[in-house]
Order: sequence, then C-alpha cells, then structure tokens
Amino acid sequence: MICLNDVQQAQRRIAAYIHKTPVVTSKRLNDWLGHSVYFKAECLQKVGAFKARGACNTLAWLIETGTKPKHVVSNSSGNHAQAVAWSARQFNIPATIYMPRNVSRVKAKATAAYGAEVVFCESRAEADQRASEAAVQTGTFWIPPFNHEQVIAGQGTAAYEALEHLHRENKKVNAVFAPCGGGGILSGSLISTRGLSRSTSVIGAEPLKANDAAQSLRRGEIVRLPEQPVTLADGAMPLSVGDITFDHLKQLDDFFEIGEESIAYWTQWISHLLKLHVEPTSAMSMEAVRQWLRPKSTRQTVLVILTGGNIDHQMMSRIWQEDYLSEVPTCQTDPY
Amino acid sequence: MICLNDVQQAQRRIAAYIHKTPVVTSKRLNDWLGHSVYFKAECLQKVGAFKARGACNTLAWLIETGTKPKHVVSNSSGNHAQAVAWSARQFNIPATIYMPRNVSRVKAKATAAYGAEVVFCESRAEADQRASEAAVQTGTFWIPPFNHEQVIAGQGTAAYEALEHLHRENKKVNAVFAPCGGGGILSGSLISTRGLSRSTSVIGAEPLKANDAAQSLRRGEIVRLPEQPVTLADGAMPLSVGDITFDHLKQLDDFFEIGEESIAYWTQWISHLLKLHVEPTSAMSMEAVRQWLRPKSTRQTVLVILTGGNIDHQMMSRIWQEDYLSEVPTCQTDPY
Repeated sequence: MICLNDVQQAQRRIAAYIHKTPVVTSKRLNDWLGHSVYFKAECLQKVGAFKARGACNTLAWLIETGTKPKHVVSNSSGNHAQAVAWSARQFNIPATIYMPRNVSRVKAKATAAYGAEVVFCESRAEADQRASEAAVQTGTFWIPPFNHEQVIAGQGTAAYEALEHLHRENKKVNAVFAPCGGGGILSGSLISTRGLSRSTSVIGAEPLKANDAAQSLRRGEIVRLPEQPVTLADGAMPLSVGDITFDHLKQLDDFFEIGEESIAYWTQWISHLLKLHVEPTSAMSMEAVRQWLRPKSTRQTVLVILTGGNIDHQMMSRIWQEDYLSEVPTCQTDPY
Repeated sequence: MICLNDVQQAQRRIAAYIHKTPVVTSKRLNDWLGHSVYFKAECLQKVGAFKARGACNTLAWLIETGTKPKHVVSNSSGNHAQAVAWSARQFNIPATIYMPRNVSRVKAKATAAYGAEVVFCESRAEADQRASEAAVQTGTFWIPPFNHEQVIAGQGTAAYEALEHLHRENKKVNAVFAPCGGGGILSGSLISTRGLSRSTSVIGAEPLKANDAAQSLRRGEIVRLPEQPVTLADGAMPLSVGDITFDHLKQLDDFFEIGEESIAYWTQWISHLLKLHVEPTSAMSMEAVRQWLRPKSTRQTVLVILTGGNIDHQMMSRIWQEDYLSEVPTCQTDPY
C-alpha cells in the first residue's frame, strides 16, 4: 500500500501546476460551535476541485517513469473529466472524454474549454464501454477517477498541505474530515494524516442516500448500489468504492451517513460564513464534524477538506429552496 | 473635497483591523472576453463587505482627532449595520442599531453577534427617526452609510489596495468599476484612482430599477426615488445619493444602468468562475464592464470591486431560479 512518501512525491511532482489553496476559518462558526474548524478550500483549486491533484500526479508519474502516454481517455461527467482534460493539456497530451449526452451543457463546455475532445454517448454504459475500448489501444492511458494509487497519492496532497500549514502555525489537529464518493480524497487524506500524526483521527462522510461505503464498511466487503442514487452531494454518487480505496477506508476512525436536509443546511451556511462557492459534497462533511464534536468536552481543532465548487444551476436552485440560514449552527441541538 | 492623501491616511488607520483582501482573476473569463478582468474580493472582508473600511476609518479618525464617541448609532438593515457594530467593538464603543422589524433574522442576528444592541422599529421611518434622535445626545455619534468624508475615504482604500497591488505586478489598469448605491464605494474608488493614475477611467453601475444616480447625473441635481425600489442588487437601493458623494460622482467617466436579468446572469457566472459567494450588487458591475469593453479594439485591463457577499436565502433562491450558466459570457453578443 502507498504511504506518506508517495504523497510527498506527488506534492513535488504537481507543485508547479496546481494552486496551493488557502486554509480558511470562520470566527463566528468557531464561537457558535465552541471548537476550531479549519477548511482547505479546494474549490479554489484548478478546475474548481481537488481532482486536479490526482489526475496531474498520475500523468506526471507516468512521464517520470518513462511511460508518457500518447493519448489519455476518461469516462466522467463531473470534476474528474475536467481534471483529466486540464492535466492532459499541462503535458501536451491529447485527451478524449466520453460523456453521456444528458450531462449539463456547462460541464461539457468546461471540459471542452480545457482542450479535450468530448464524445457524447447515448448512455453512461456506452460511455464506460467506449472509454475501456479506447484504453486497450497502445499508447492510450485511461485515468480512473479514484481506484489508482497515483490518483490517491495526488488527492492526499490536499490534506498534506493543510496539515503542514496548520503545523507551522502550531495548531494540533484532532481530526480530519473528507467526503466519500469513490474514496479517493478520503484515502489520500488518511495516508497524509497517518503519516504526519498518529494521534489525529480521520473521518468520512457519505450521503445516507448513497451509502455504499458505509454498508461496505459494516459488511467488510464492497457493496455496490443497485442503481444510481439521487442526492444533493453529486460528488459522492459512484455506485461503489474500489478495491484499493476500500483497503484504506477500513482504517478510518469514524464514518457518518448524512441526510439530504443536513447537506443543504451546511451548503447554505458554509457559503454564508466563508463566502466561498462550495459544492454540497464539500459542505456535507460539516454535519459529520458537528455530530463528532457533540460529545467532546474539551476544545477540538479539526480540518475539513472542502472538495470543490462546481455546481450547476439546477443544484443551486435545489440547495436554496428552503431557508436554513435562520437556524444558527451549534453542536448541542440539531438545527433542523 | 477629500483627495488621495485622505485615502492613504485611512489606509494607515484601518490596516490593523481589516483584511487585505485578495485580487483574483479568471483565466477562462479573460479568454472569453478577450480582455483582463481583475476582481478585488471584498466579499472576503470583515463583516463580508467593504463597509467595514468606512465605518472603521470614521471611528479611528474620531479617536485620532480626540473626539472618541461614548456611543455610536446607525439606522440600517444591511452591511452598514454590521460594519458599524463590528467597528464599534474594535474600539470598545457601545453601539445601537435601529432596524425595521421586517429585516431578515439572519441580518439582525449577525449585527447582534458583533456585539451591538439591535432595536427593532415598526418601520424604516421610525428607525431613521430614532437614530437621529439618539444622535443629538452628547457623546453619541451617528455613522452615516455613505455621505461622510471619512466614510468615503475608508471605502476608497479597497480600490487603493487593489491598484497598488496591480501596479506592483506591472499591470496598467484602463478602468475601475464599482456599483452605485449611495455612492460611497464609487466616490472612494474615484478618489483613489484619480490620485494614482490620471489616465484610468472610473465607471459606475446601477440597477435600472433604482437609477436615481443615473437620473441625477443626467439632470445635474440629486433626484430622489419616489418609493423603495425592488431590485436584486439590494446593496444599491438607497433612494438617493448624498450631496458629498454626488460631487464626486459628477467626475465619473461613464455610468451604466443594468437590467435585473443581467444582474442575475453575472451573479451566477461570477460565483461559478471565481468560486466566491458574491452579492448581486457586486456582480452587477460586470455587465457595465461587458458593455464598456464591447467597442474596444485593443486588449484592456480592468478592475472590478466585488463589494460584498451577504445574501439571504430569499435572494439566493431568486438569483438561481433561471439557468444562465448555459450561456457563456462574451463581449460581442448579449448573452440573454
């Protein structure tokens, strides 16, 4: 299994390409919770999500090991597609992204704007098939969204940077929180945190309506959702984790399944308090933070990885349907 | 009339209290427009708006001139109320804010959270009256929202900081854009810009539905709106500019009246491209930028003051009702 050294190698490889995103905090939120919460703002990352780290590291690693691909492909409609398109351009490699025809125009346009060829397919299944067919051709490399060691090592650099930053400010972090989709960012955060500080907990958050990872952790084997879940946290929708990420996820200290109302609640509050445009998937972790902090009797310091900020119109309109800003967050009482 | 020196004095006075907010840009937007747009992110300022600058400078100036008030009051339901409450606390001065009872709970709570006494009144008129009654008492100072030289000098520090920053990066700014409510930020930006670079234009933007400043500039005298306007740009709703701000506004190089659809369009796009939670009033300036850039045949560099990021649930829900993200911004064609 990969370890801190792999994250450090990734950090060195991608440093010239990615943003060193800020670590921010909200005095008001900290006063209300009675604890200190720091946020790694990966919504301000290239392509608007941490995914730039993993894709960039994977290509840089291929080049370093003398196996620069002639062509990269991927099948995604979300942040990973944009990350692959953007990373490929950094290294002057042509990229083809297979997408179902029904993805939002803004996401398809953004992917094309990074210079990738976007191929529309009739269905998700056809997109998956065409990507895997393309990947067997000589010189073509398929960058998977999470189940790859170099992708995980790349994602781990977000927590690594943030923990190093907080360490320099003499802040002892009690726990690190990240959302769980396929498990890439969570596995990476786990490797970085374990490597830097054995006493810091690493905790995951997953939508209750897409709780394949929670089910998998309970059963001790990978559970696959029978159908595409519907959740506000659209970055956490993969049907299952991968075998590589699952091996890491088993080492988590805690895991929370989050309801849709809580996801909307925290998306509103994080936007309001931090003035950052964050995805519901990012804000979801805050409900895990609140539940984890509730029984704590001493002041805790936690780090939350805000994973991205790419939200389409429909999602924003759903998030802001109800008014959650009239209920101030606290650790003691459920705000909704 | 106040000049660059007053802004520089303000900058010195408030530096220890306020955030030096970042200047950000979007490569994608610049590619689409064919010009360079820099944004001063005052949504990341203390209290979430540039208003912290003016209120803080006014109190610091009173203290410097040996007339520290025993009590400050203001009548506002928006960013200025929070700015007065926050500034008063910095200097350990008790503050009372008079607000109409129908303001949103989140704004009232935020003002109270900064330590001010919030007094609810039956109407806007009653709030105005009670503030002016309080202000005649010895030792009480009423901090007006815009029509005061030290408030204007304080607001001018936002453009000053941004222009100094861009100057250090060897960028020549062709024009500075800010929204017009009572005219405070626009007057301050004008003073800073004129003082630092005679060849840089200063341009205002106002909602067409609250166009008292545009009417005033056309007539050469202050026009007062007959009733409270309804616009998405709720930071630009004062019924009229002040006599002090009007004297500055007359020196503007250009002024644009912006429709509601354009305000919503740019609020969506600025959030999406910069990943910042910005008020509609902030984003409005971008339509003035677009219209001003349209006939330009050489590449221009402009600065936009993003004034704040305090938005209640109702406003967010209105902003995201329609989908504007499917129409990419360009200078050449109207996107809506």
